[in-house]
Amino acid sequence: MSSTKDIDALIAMMAKLPGLGPRSARRAVLHMIKKRALLMTPLSDSLQKVAATARECVTCGNIGTSEVCDICTSEKRANGEICVVEDVADLWAMERSGVFKGRYHVLGGTLSALDAIGPEELRIPKLMARMADENITEVILALNATIDGQTTAHYIAGELETRGVKVTSLAQGVPIGGELDYLDDGTISAALKARKAL
Amino acid sequence: MSSTKDIDALIAMMAKLPGLGPRSARRAVLHMIKKRALLMTPLSDSLQKVAATARECVTCGNIGTSEVCDICTSEKRANGEICVVEDVADLWAMERSGVFKGRYHVLGGTLSALDAIGPEELRIPKLMARMADENITEVILALNATIDGQTTAHYIAGELETRGVKVTSLAQGVPIGGELDYLDDGTISAALKARKAL
Ligand SMILES: [Zn+2]
Ligand SMILES: [Zn+2]
Repeated sequence: MSSTKDIDALIAMMAKLPGLGPRSARRAVLHMIKKRALLMTPLSDSLQKVAATARECVTCGNIGTSEVCDICTSEKRANGEICVVEDVADLWAMERSGVFKGRYHVLGGTLSALDAIGPEELRIPKLMARMADENITEVILALNATIDGQTTAHYIAGELETRGVKVTSLAQGVPIGGELDYLDDGTISAALKARKAL
Repeated sequence: MSSTKDIDALIAMMAKLPGLGPRSARRAVLHMIKKRALLMTPLSDSLQKVAATARECVTCGNIGTSEVCDICTSEKRANGEICVVEDVADLWAMERSGVFKGRYHVLGGTLSALDAIGPEELRIPKLMARMADENITEVILALNATIDGQTTAHYIAGELETRGVKVTSLAQGVPIGGELDYLDDGTISAALKARKAL
């Protein structure tokens, strides 16, 4: 591809990242090589730092640098509300909208009969345990508007019903087949404000 | 954006690379964090290695790991032909086609009155010096079909004319697999003018 093994190896690694391909990886690597002191060394250091410190919050599954993440430890966020999302990217999307003031729970995927993913494969038992531990009064299901996402929402709603917890979901503004991480802040904000009891 | 300063810094760096944006940077970083041992540490090491070893070939401007690149030192490539390109990415594209067997010369851009880029700002004096040093008989201009690219091609052709070197350029026309309906007028016009008997 290029003329050196090391550069080819770097391009191959970059090309495998989601959202990149061989062409954008080549462009990114060439751009970095041209400004290597300014870009490559800091990026390498930053990757090393994040690789060494990033970890999943044991409570909610968010990614942070401590055993329990900043959102879970913040007393300001302890308002009895938990927003359930599929992925950390969705949690970040919710946070960018700046509207939700409670805490989160990252499932780590959705139930899927096809892929043999049951409640135990997700962070669902931990979600149930948090209901009593944190005096949760409302769970907001912010799952993707996909079949698996909605199946998962219904399953969780059923489990929570027996515990006397109010369950709502993002209803307005989420397009059919849409994924949270693709939505603009205003849409997420509108969907949160218009949430409805399931 | 995320919940930690280090992760935000990493996302910001990735987002500035050509071809990426904030969203693809977030996705790439989350993906890497999930597989950090497998992806982040090797990528960090690879960046460090390339940052430490990558350099421009003093002869042709290609990027490699030695003072003079593998193509310039290869005796197999010393056939009296030099292919002139704007950028290292173009050199790599030519190499992927596997057809050209000579050596290269990377200009590092194009002449531009607007940006005050004259021959001295590019690798044009070095190109002229190579004519005698390497017994060059043909220079193939593989510059982009832009106004600046073609201005640069004409300038170089003029300079080489006085040296008795044959100057050619890549044929313009319909790309293989290309559909006329998707091509711009200039390409169709060039392809028509350069039409050949079947
Ligand atoms: Zn947490
Ligand atoms: Zn070279």
